Amino acid sequence: MLNELKQQVLEANLALPRHNLVTFTWGNVSAVDRGQGLLVIKPSGVEYAHMTAEDMVVVELESGRVVEGNKKPSSDTDTHRVLYLNFEQVGGIVHTHSRHATIWAQAGQDIPAWGTTHADYFYGPIPCTRMMNEAEIGGRYEWETGEVIVKTFRERNIDPQAVPAVLVHSHGPFAWGSDADNAVHNAVVLEEVAYMGIFSRQLTPDLPAMQPQLLDKHYLRKHGKNAYYGQ
Amino acid sequence: MLNELKQQVLEANLALPRHNLVTFTWGNVSAVDRGQGLLVIKPSGVEYAHMTAEDMVVVELESGRVVEGNKKPSSDTDTHRVLYLNFEQVGGIVHTHSRHATIWAQAGQDIPAWGTTHADYFYGPIPCTRMMNEAEIGGRYEWETGEVIVKTFRERNIDPQAVPAVLVHSHGPFAWGSDADNAVHNAVVLEEVAYMGIFSRQLTPDLPAMQPQLLDKHYLRKHGKNAYYGQ
Amino acid sequence: MLNELKQQVLEANLALPRHNLVTFTWGNVSAVDRGQGLLVIKPSGVEYAHMTAEDMVVVELESGRVVEGNKKPSSDTDTHRVLYLNFEQVGGIVHTHSRHATIWAQAGQDIPAWGTTHADYFYGPIPCTRMMNEAEIGGRYEWETGEVIVKTFRERNIDPQAVPAVLVHSHGPFAWGSDADNAVHNAVVLEEVAYMGIFSRQLTPDLPAMQPQLLDKHYLRKHGKNAYYGQ
Amino acid sequence: MLNELKQQVLEANLALPRHNLVTFTWGNVSAVDRGQGLLVIKPSGVEYAHMTAEDMVVVELESGRVVEGNKKPSSDTDTHRVLYLNFEQVGGIVHTHSRHATIWAQAGQDIPAWGTTHADYFYGPIPCTRMMNEAEIGGRYEWETGEVIVKTFRERNIDPQAVPAVLVHSHGPFAWGSDADNAVHNAVVLEEVAYMGIFSRQLTPDLPAMQPQLLDKHYLRKHGKNAYYGQ
Repeated sequence: MLNELKQQVLEANLALPRHNLVTFTWGNVSAVDRGQGLLVIKPSGVEYAHMTAEDMVVVELESGRVVEGNKKPSSDTDTHRVLYLNFEQVGGIVHTHSRHATIWAQAGQDIPAWGTTHADYFYGPIPCTRMMNEAEIGGRYEWETGEVIVKTFRERNIDPQAVPAVLVHSHGPFAWGSDADNAVHNAVVLEEVAYMGIFSRQLTPDLPAMQPQLLDKHYLRKHGKNAYYGQ
Repeated sequence: MLNELKQQVLEANLALPRHNLVTFTWGNVSAVDRGQGLLVIKPSGVEYAHMTAEDMVVVELESGRVVEGNKKPSSDTDTHRVLYLNFEQVGGIVHTHSRHATIWAQAGQDIPAWGTTHADYFYGPIPCTRMMNEAEIGGRYEWETGEVIVKTFRERNIDPQAVPAVLVHSHGPFAWGSDADNAVHNAVVLEEVAYMGIFSRQLTPDLPAMQPQLLDKHYLRKHGKNAYYGQ
Repeated sequence: MLNELKQQVLEANLALPRHNLVTFTWGNVSAVDRGQGLLVIKPSGVEYAHMTAEDMVVVELESGRVVEGNKKPSSDTDTHRVLYLNFEQVGGIVHTHSRHATIWAQAGQDIPAWGTTHADYFYGPIPCTRMMNEAEIGGRYEWETGEVIVKTFRERNIDPQAVPAVLVHSHGPFAWGSDADNAVHNAVVLEEVAYMGIFSRQLTPDLPAMQPQLLDKHYLRKHGKNAYYGQ
Repeated sequence: MLNELKQQVLEANLALPRHNLVTFTWGNVSAVDRGQGLLVIKPSGVEYAHMTAEDMVVVELESGRVVEGNKKPSSDTDTHRVLYLNFEQVGGIVHTHSRHATIWAQAGQDIPAWGTTHADYFYGPIPCTRMMNEAEIGGRYEWETGEVIVKTFRERNIDPQAVPAVLVHSHGPFAWGSDADNAVHNAVVLEEVAYMGIFSRQLTPDLPAMQPQLLDKHYLRKHGKNAYYGQ
């Protein structure tokens, strides 16, 4: 069942330690099959070194029911579900505690668009959610984490296709993309811009956002109908 | 004698350079056999590359007497003894000069709980001891180092099970756990949160501690009778 | 056609990930054959792991026309062209988003000459260009990027032979040299001095530039007719 | 001639890139044979990957004359000579531009003794020399670099045995020891304490030096007649 997707999700999970995005088992990648309404996700708390495609867990998108797999799915599965249910063009999602993106999340701040590295992938600042309230934390916590992400994008009128990542306040980043591999790609870029942002602001404490024209130029050079980067 | 424990202690010591927690021989891991009242610890000043299980030294917990081994035990053995004698559920202890935890120790500050990475392992700030006084430094120094750690937890009413690490002022971290491997695991997490804390505070200089509800949620999601993380 | 130069350009491109100067495909190296008026450059958006010498693209320096190659040249080709056309002794050019040089570019600041590591390679501060204006960004953007670099050197009267690197504002570094390999060498040094500069200024916030005599001594010890460094 | 010493010097030089202390050829190690009045040093500007013991150059300590070797000795040879001639118990010397020690040198500041990692090896702050004056820079520069180091230790009454490293202002570190290997060991520790010091002071901007009693305890635990660390 969904063997190809399981393999993609496995490989995307294994890419996390290779890109230095995770310590121990602190990360998870999923992908979705929209036609069947199913998502495939890493099992909870399993070491990367021992994971196989068969360990990947198949979960029904609407109900959250485990459809296949001997292991419990990632404890963050409900967050992934909310994102797939609300961000309809997303094909893959990754959650990590990668060091520098997590630093911004802990600091409770957006990562401003400060250069073309950022603009090549993110069409504006990468938002940090508000803190979750007691009811959200005490209720269906992982589901509510997804909800607060979705609200952040809705209220601030950010297109999740154009800004494929978020910082959850006091927690860490989620990134997404067209599939699992693309989501990991975006998570790597997020970590790069998070690192560079910390020290760009150290050098110039009141650093303003980059020029909107330059943001447009770089984002649209790589995305949309007039893109001309790559082969 | 205690061959299995020696092997565990050896492997935990060898994990230190693999996790980039030590330079040269600057670290030591021990484990305890509570039934026999014995601890097994790395020998003093021996290179990781050449250590074998036979090099591990067996020390009587109460007396400090070397019971087996051709080499001198780690010069920090007395600190380990005090911790085992006072923190009765601890099975393994690790001491390193890992860079970022040591930075906080040198700065003489607790590491505040600033995110869920921290909350997944440490149920509150990681305390920094007070400076040791002249009598403590001039007396049984390594023993007194253990004493000042124990006093820190007693006076501040911190449960060493719930906060399995400490920073010794002007020195560096000790971490512990259910066994040697778990102690090293906690030492790795400590180093992660130490790193992230430095720069979270750089971004937001007056950063308050994370919400108590979120600290509870994450700590109790992984620990205690209602834990639901992992398999 | 130009097989030797293609091989040099390939090898210089492959050196970028080895020196930790690039993430994914974010870098490009070119070299020029002045006699034939041709440059050889990395194709756009191709992964380093799969590149071969045959993938390198040959471009006419004056016209920008692709003379040989099955792939599109780097989207930054026009910037390289402007630099070759204006900096006549340059044989190779490299563009990266290397972390610490990019941090200075995002901060919009020159890297001051703060030590002999800098002085051994760069005879004065490494300039950051002004921001590009709307006409430049909206016009032939990559060509105009080259133009703003050339203007920076002209207006500030900097010799591109003596300061073989620049920071493009809100973007990242370009470095150059006598050939592709030497350009990469200079890009590595640039990244080193960029890293060290961030923290030298952290330690001494109003750090003045190094003494001109010391800058002279080190630069001229390695360059020019009285050089005595090396074999 | 001096084959064993050449081998030691070769191995110590090769240890520099392994400990991440050098980029390209930016480092040099020497050792001295006091009986014969000769020193062995790395050749100038030769890549580590291709160096052999035969490439090491033998230089007469008093005169600076090359006694054996096909290559030019390191351009810093005269600095090494001055140190050997003045610091009579030194057996090996290393010079690098290691990142964090160089940051302190560029900032023109001593590295204060801020923790036991420092105290285990350096019995007090690691001094930064004053700037060299025009006559020194314009004269026998490398010799004068040695002279300014020696003056720093004399004027500040620092014992080079007890503080086996220095920062040359606007330049970088020299470290020394009983032999070439021990000098490299001290250079590694210097880099560690340099790194940790930058961020300890970031956390606690007015951080005072560690307690003299603790400095004594740790230094004397490892050095001198009452040392009890190691086997």
